[in-house]
Amino acid sequence: LKSETVFAGKDITLRRDTVQLPSGEPFEHDIAERPEEITVIPQISEKELIMVKQFRRGVQEILLELPGGKISAGERAEEAARRELEEETGYQAGEMRELREIFFAPGWSTIKKTFFLARELKAAKNPHPADLDENIEVVKLTFEEALAKAESGEIKDAKSILGLSLVKKFFASS
Amino acid sequence: LKSETVFAGKDITLRRDTVQLPSGEPFEHDIAERPEEITVIPQISEKELIMVKQFRRGVQEILLELPGGKISAGERAEEAARRELEEETGYQAGEMRELREIFFAPGWSTIKKTFFLARELKAAKNPHPADLDENIEVVKLTFEEALAKAESGEIKDAKSILGLSLVKKFFASS
Repeated sequence: LKSETVFAGKDITLRRDTVQLPSGEPFEHDIAERPEEITVIPQISEKELIMVKQFRRGVQEILLELPGGKISAGERAEEAARRELEEETGYQAGEMRELREIFFAPGWSTIKKTFFLARELKAAKNPHPADLDENIEVVKLTFEEALAKAESGEIKDAKSILGLSLVKKFFASS
Repeated sequence: LKSETVFAGKDITLRRDTVQLPSGEPFEHDIAERPEEITVIPQISEKELIMVKQFRRGVQEILLELPGGKISAGERAEEAARRELEEETGYQAGEMRELREIFFAPGWSTIKKTFFLARELKAAKNPHPADLDENIEVVKLTFEEALAKAESGEIKDAKSILGLSLVKKFFASS
């Protein structure tokens, strides 16, 4: 019936859609619009990957996660993946392979993440600086260690657990 | 430095936190607060589960997903899982086993989902009616069919792909 913006924040816009129910009654839904995001699985050797550890404000905890972030206006998904990888880990990727897109909250948000496998990593000479508000520790671990942390609950977020599950076939098992 | 509510909607509250950067500058983050949610994997036989198909407003698509929804005020997670299972599928569970909690957008939202495996299912005699705005088709499929759909991209949302990955050991393979 109608769709209006009820709040426009820096990274979140709230849209209110009014729809007609089968009964004829109007019904309101709030939808959180967010820029699209990317998640990167940085493979640094046959058996190892890079993850990042940082304080996350949504949940008020330090989390061990795959790197990633928002796609900026005018940027392609792969460009965002290369930029975030360099900003968060200091590495550049020779190969950046798109794996797939996944919805994260389809009932109430547009949010979608595109997953990339980054390979042929080398340390950037003058890495892009991280965002001002980010304070990130880079962690190197084997793929098997990462899977064990996802299983045990030490890795707690959906994109990291999902990202690991998408790349099993690319890592050599020990 | 400060934390204020900038928008209070029906199911989404936007909180703006102002923090001090290491440089001394203030920095603002918008955080979307949402009620906690549950996701249910309803196992209906040794090899089969139930999923639901419905139009999802966040992404404007019909999706095949695991059932689930918000925990209501005053409700425990398991109660919400039993209620949503009955509302969305018409089944009641003899056993409702909590598996684990997973964060879904730790950078910008409090959102967390608790996953449950539902077993000993039987059709409810007078099922709770679904929410007014829901129009849900119940789908029975084998666990292997569901995994193949997650792999192929026919199942597109994070909670469903993750939920399936949590319960592999409970299903007999064919």
